[in-house]
Amino acid sequence: MSATERSHAEALDAADPLAGFRDRFVLDDPERIYVDGNSLGRLPVATPTLLAERVREWGSRLVTAWPDWIELPERVGDLLAPLLGARPGEVVMADSTTVNLYKLAAAALDARPGRRAIITDAANFPTDRYVFEGLAAREGAELRLLQADAVEGPSAADVENACTAGDVAFVSLQHVDYRSGALADMEAITAVAHEAGALVLWDLSHSAGAVPVRLDEVGADLAVGCTYKYLNAGPGALAYLYVRGDLQEELRSPIWGWFGQRDQFLMGPGYDPAPGVARFLAGTPPVLDLSAAEVGIRLTGEAGLDALRAKSVALTELVVELRDAWLAPLGFGLGSPREPGRRGGHVSLRHEEAWPICRALLERANVVPDFRVPDSIRLGLPPLYTRFVDAWDALDRLRRLVEAGVHHEVDAAPARVT
Amino acid sequence: MSATERSHAEALDAADPLAGFRDRFVLDDPERIYVDGNSLGRLPVATPTLLAERVREWGSRLVTAWPDWIELPERVGDLLAPLLGARPGEVVMADSTTVNLYKLAAAALDARPGRRAIITDAANFPTDRYVFEGLAAREGAELRLLQADAVEGPSAADVENACTAGDVAFVSLQHVDYRSGALADMEAITAVAHEAGALVLWDLSHSAGAVPVRLDEVGADLAVGCTYKYLNAGPGALAYLYVRGDLQEELRSPIWGWFGQRDQFLMGPGYDPAPGVARFLAGTPPVLDLSAAEVGIRLTGEAGLDALRAKSVALTELVVELRDAWLAPLGFGLGSPREPGRRGGHVSLRHEEAWPICRALLERANVVPDFRVPDSIRLGLPPLYTRFVDAWDALDRLRRLVEAGVHHEVDAAPARVT
Repeated sequence: MSATERSHAEALDAADPLAGFRDRFVLDDPERIYVDGNSLGRLPVATPTLLAERVREWGSRLVTAWPDWIELPERVGDLLAPLLGARPGEVVMADSTTVNLYKLAAAALDARPGRRAIITDAANFPTDRYVFEGLAAREGAELRLLQADAVEGPSAADVENACTAGDVAFVSLQHVDYRSGALADMEAITAVAHEAGALVLWDLSHSAGAVPVRLDEVGADLAVGCTYKYLNAGPGALAYLYVRGDLQEELRSPIWGWFGQRDQFLMGPGYDPAPGVARFLAGTPPVLDLSAAEVGIRLTGEAGLDALRAKSVALTELVVELRDAWLAPLGFGLGSPREPGRRGGHVSLRHEEAWPICRALLERANVVPDFRVPDSIRLGLPPLYTRFVDAWDALDRLRRLVEAGVHHEVDAAPARVT
Repeated sequence: MSATERSHAEALDAADPLAGFRDRFVLDDPERIYVDGNSLGRLPVATPTLLAERVREWGSRLVTAWPDWIELPERVGDLLAPLLGARPGEVVMADSTTVNLYKLAAAALDARPGRRAIITDAANFPTDRYVFEGLAAREGAELRLLQADAVEGPSAADVENACTAGDVAFVSLQHVDYRSGALADMEAITAVAHEAGALVLWDLSHSAGAVPVRLDEVGADLAVGCTYKYLNAGPGALAYLYVRGDLQEELRSPIWGWFGQRDQFLMGPGYDPAPGVARFLAGTPPVLDLSAAEVGIRLTGEAGLDALRAKSVALTELVVELRDAWLAPLGFGLGSPREPGRRGGHVSLRHEEAWPICRALLERANVVPDFRVPDSIRLGLPPLYTRFVDAWDALDRLRRLVEAGVHHEVDAAPARVT
């Protein structure tokens, strides 16, 4: 049975052990195909319930509920830890990805005095690059940008070549590239960075929940990530950070806040960082957000990352096959690695008219894709709720639309938001 | 009619123009007296509704709703601005109070190169002190602590005396002292700091929503605050920051994030701070939290700060009168200024057995007060929902309890959380 026949996708759905998880999410318009879960994940059915329960708790118990809330950043972090290959006590929910990047990057610079180079990828996600650029500017460090292959992403050799001067404080890369979907070789890159005496800070935003992560096993030092993509915790949801257990005592957040203080409620005269990962907390944690994060993380854990990854590979493989069969003749390049084991949960298609094509998909074909400047159409296929027929139908609608030239009929308004 | 007669409090309630606002909040146990709204404000009736609506919007519109969400940090900031005496475009909702303190304090240090002293009050709230201590340690600055009067708080003369060396980058104080409730003379302190060439960063956490704030009028430079106290936005709610309009171009956040970037979705190669207060944003804003903040801020605006302040003064005055009449003989000191115009929205009572007394109030008298080390019982009286009979009954239950020695019968467990 050929991938170009819809019955192929239907057969894959029929055999999908995760198919039942789709019903755990709120499904909007049944005709709409949502292939942007890599940007904002769907709403779990359980989220409004837990959120409402915690709101009621605020209303009825008021300040007396704080003893039950105060450890939530660590408790929810411990729920997330196994999905990242981390141990309990190594992950905490906190702040935004951006603020967590700042905290851990500054801590890494401080932990390598005398080393003033920061290495990242020129194609890294903007907020990562901006945070490191700002830190370098304020602290007299040098931001060294890898010019990696746009599809395959940075390799261990790229990192090794940039580390030869022995002046690198830390290397920071995305585990899965936000544009191409390329999956970095976390183990090899961590090893060459360590060989050069540098720490490694991974951004897991586009991998956590779709790809098994093995932070402890590969000896990673630091990591951050968001929960609003594959972890389905909602728009602007609370982020997380990871610090390997044996590094925690040595590192300090640059933001000395009362939730990172030992014996917080003694309100003592001087700052003394809490033991463990809690020292990277800053202000009062957002209790309502923690309930949304908890639901999304539990759902992912219930499905299991091995099953999710297997389905995710099959989904992206179907997209690549249909790109080859249908879209290559229409001028679509493959912006993601061809080797399935080298991809995360989304596939990037490149086309010189990517922006009007995305508008047309949204406005005329009821498909929600994701555009990234200058020429990428990202198709995100979160395995928890994406069916194989969704992938098939999205590509089918896409090829029909471009064949008919519908993208020449829409307004090319400014790029929208993720 | 004497303050010691309950009918006095009843008469004040009968004449209270804000009495109707109590019904806008979820009231738990009607027998419980909640005098800890200075720690965590009550749940507005409207909050679960707006929150549920925004959750539904996430579920049904998914990523396509972002164009409606993306300006919420500024739009809700503009709703808050008049309560702070600020203009539209000077306030933005962002992060936690701690992270905002860090951002603005670092920006102030950077804006005063060559000046390396930071002035704050030794009795400032812990997270403020810790943030400045950490910043001073990392940036080679000196943290200079005012030793102000414990009840009256720091005066303009205290600040002036600490600024004589011409080396002060910024002064940061609480507008209302978290322990004593003392209301700082924002105008005079700002003037002496400016005279010395320093910037001023105000922490409004314990004043916003209870006391009119006139940031623009007094020429304040910077401010931060939380929304979970008198603004009733929920546990760990989103905080805010203020940067005076004419200073915005000159200042930069140390955390260069993508939400502070000009033309964010061009995802350009280098960071270029957005015009206006948005440059102090960092990561993706928490959309659900913004709805809770919106409800609390609108309610406060609807009541009006002048009316709120008038009632707040009358409430704290009643507490002081009853302290004088009933509690002074029982060993309770007044930990707040006696002059009503010098107090914020809470009153601090001091007693050497403050901790067991607080436990007993909670466990035996159904009164929720607030303990602060070492010897303060804070009674918070948010004027939006606190009745005069609540204040009267709280003090009445307190004196009966201490007279009967009930506080000697309870366990003195570790201090609880705020």
